[in-house]
Amino acid sequence: MAKAIPTSPLARPLPELTEIAGVKLGSVAAGIRYTGRDDLMMMEFTPGTTVAGVFTRNKCPAAPIDWSKAALAQGKARALLVNSGNANVFTGRAGVLATQVSAAAAARFTQCAATDVFLASTGVIGEKLPAEKIVDAMPKLYESLREDGWSAAARAIMTTDTFPKAAVREVRIGDTTVKLQGIAKGSGMIAPDMATMLGFVATDAALPNDVLQTLLHRGIETSFNAITVDSDTSTSDMVLLFATGKAGNPQVAHADDPALSEFAAALHDLLRELAILVVRDGEGATKMMTIRVTGGTSDESAKKIALAVGNSPLVKTAIAGEDANWGRIVMAVGKSGEAANRDTLSVAIGGTWIARMGAVVEGYDEAPVVAHMKEDEIDIQIDLGLANGHATIWTCDLTHGYIDINGSYRS
Amino acid sequence: MAKAIPTSPLARPLPELTEIAGVKLGSVAAGIRYTGRDDLMMMEFTPGTTVAGVFTRNKCPAAPIDWSKAALAQGKARALLVNSGNANVFTGRAGVLATQVSAAAAARFTQCAATDVFLASTGVIGEKLPAEKIVDAMPKLYESLREDGWSAAARAIMTTDTFPKAAVREVRIGDTTVKLQGIAKGSGMIAPDMATMLGFVATDAALPNDVLQTLLHRGIETSFNAITVDSDTSTSDMVLLFATGKAGNPQVAHADDPALSEFAAALHDLLRELAILVVRDGEGATKMMTIRVTGGTSDESAKKIALAVGNSPLVKTAIAGEDANWGRIVMAVGKSGEAANRDTLSVAIGGTWIARMGAVVEGYDEAPVVAHMKEDEIDIQIDLGLANGHATIWTCDLTHGYIDINGSYRS
Repeated sequence: MAKAIPTSPLARPLPELTEIAGVKLGSVAAGIRYTGRDDLMMMEFTPGTTVAGVFTRNKCPAAPIDWSKAALAQGKARALLVNSGNANVFTGRAGVLATQVSAAAAARFTQCAATDVFLASTGVIGEKLPAEKIVDAMPKLYESLREDGWSAAARAIMTTDTFPKAAVREVRIGDTTVKLQGIAKGSGMIAPDMATMLGFVATDAALPNDVLQTLLHRGIETSFNAITVDSDTSTSDMVLLFATGKAGNPQVAHADDPALSEFAAALHDLLRELAILVVRDGEGATKMMTIRVTGGTSDESAKKIALAVGNSPLVKTAIAGEDANWGRIVMAVGKSGEAANRDTLSVAIGGTWIARMGAVVEGYDEAPVVAHMKEDEIDIQIDLGLANGHATIWTCDLTHGYIDINGSYRS
Repeated sequence: MAKAIPTSPLARPLPELTEIAGVKLGSVAAGIRYTGRDDLMMMEFTPGTTVAGVFTRNKCPAAPIDWSKAALAQGKARALLVNSGNANVFTGRAGVLATQVSAAAAARFTQCAATDVFLASTGVIGEKLPAEKIVDAMPKLYESLREDGWSAAARAIMTTDTFPKAAVREVRIGDTTVKLQGIAKGSGMIAPDMATMLGFVATDAALPNDVLQTLLHRGIETSFNAITVDSDTSTSDMVLLFATGKAGNPQVAHADDPALSEFAAALHDLLRELAILVVRDGEGATKMMTIRVTGGTSDESAKKIALAVGNSPLVKTAIAGEDANWGRIVMAVGKSGEAANRDTLSVAIGGTWIARMGAVVEGYDEAPVVAHMKEDEIDIQIDLGLANGHATIWTCDLTHGYIDINGSYRS
């Protein structure tokens, strides 16, 4: 195991958490890999809870990714079971069996079909998940479920995250007040063999699962899908959104219903807050970067360019070194493969335009930029000068801490 | 400027260099950015010399890239002028002017058209290239030209490379012995603002420029285009191949002429040797990695997967830490976006198959792999089990040295 990692300098305290009617949570120490801490978390949802989900696009997905994708086809959820320490990835037939056994155990206590149980695992890749430990822990786990278990749950799903991550919102659908609350984990593929990013959000709103899925898809593209720590897509990424219906809001039939505008905005905002917390816990991070790209030929193209800049080791190391090295930003724009033109390209750091239309700004004064580089939130703005496509992504710097965390000896 | 960087532990001494009839080289200290060392290099070619070239695909190319691309349209070369310390990138109209002035100065001495002069610049991005220093240095530079100037030339084009790079071959075209000799520079975008990779190869063979261009294109794809240090494509990459014709070999009309088979193989081999020298001087490198991918749906797809593995910060840091972390290789294959199937995937390190067909090999003994990880040349083999596409790429590890080199303060 990796040595202890200090809490990220960009850490944020947990917000004041609430309860979501229809959701109970609990956690126990099942001894799957860690000792002396909870490593198995369960959420139980009231009957009739709808669910939406998005999953990793990695072609070597974890067994629980396959399981939860299949479960999502039903659109209903009664339970979620999450272990940390073992990702159940690249475990062949044994991995599939482990998902079946785990889901069946949770279903037995929840008195539901196994296909109403969602699964997530993160941790070591390639080692068999000891499902019997999960089965053995189930009675104590089920007993631990309570409505105010959110904070403990946020901690139980951590692998080598340095702080727990949660966000909460309250909005109205029609005249009904509804709540949204979510937890997340991840900071890249933190320590050797450790993978990944998870987000679980629950609301007491009553929403059909297809509406939920549409809202989640819309929200994810500019939140969890707009962050990067090290460009390495995990095999286990998953964000699930559960709606218990306990708030009793008026019925909503489609995602574009005006009654949902406040809810959709709050969901998006909450997803973004959780995603940014993951970046703030990025491996070895000392600075957070917001990269805004405008003037692209499409939003998609602008996002690819923003990610090329955010994933460039040369840009990330320059930021770590507090070096306003805008030439590297130009390089990264150019290497993205997307439409870009040197002679219409402009770059700003911390709101100061350094380069405009293919050359450095006449009389450019580096002083305000140098001052901005010393802060722990760095703003980079790129205008491509081509059309109206735009995108924003969030990432962190690349430091000695990253090398320490990921180069340490595993075997 | 960055602090002094120690010579790469993977450095190789210069081979015994030869002369290429029809080529004279020289270098001088023009004081463009560096002091106390040569920073301006010139090659003069005998009239009738043909030329082929490949250039960076970065969309924000250096001004000398634009110049040399235009010059290549003529297919003839009389001179090459290379400065280090300033890349003449993102310099707008001033940058274009600097290329015109520099080429004209070299043309005056060589008594040729300016469009017969090729240009290359590497170093800082975004600062105006002081072309007057190049003009002033030209008389002394021209005086320095000699047939055995190769070693000094290999040094003059270095920016923060830690060792000079050259390779030499001798082969036959028909009954005629011909020579090939090349120099290269680069190790990523080495120090803050420093860019890039250059390769210059000369032969005394007589070859039409279209044949030369075809041979160069074929050779480059599996040599310079198959290496990566940090995934950051420079704005100034350029490889030029000059043929003086002095060997007097029989005429060859097309690239597939059987008389060229030995020459084409030697050219490819020489390009690969130079490319691997660049990897061996990778920023902060302590280990070289060879990544072979087989079983892909196409060669192109296999190469993309090999590059996804070679560019993965998690794979690179694991190699630096001598950690046989094959789970990260699986992750990187899966994230490439290329056709891959977890259940037909196999991975070997140092010739030991660790994972086969979607799961770890039964009774896998890590000992030989752990031993291999301590060597400074690491072999990774990936079989996708889909079809017959294959590719090999070369890269290096990601270490604290990389952060030191690239995070140091520039301004």
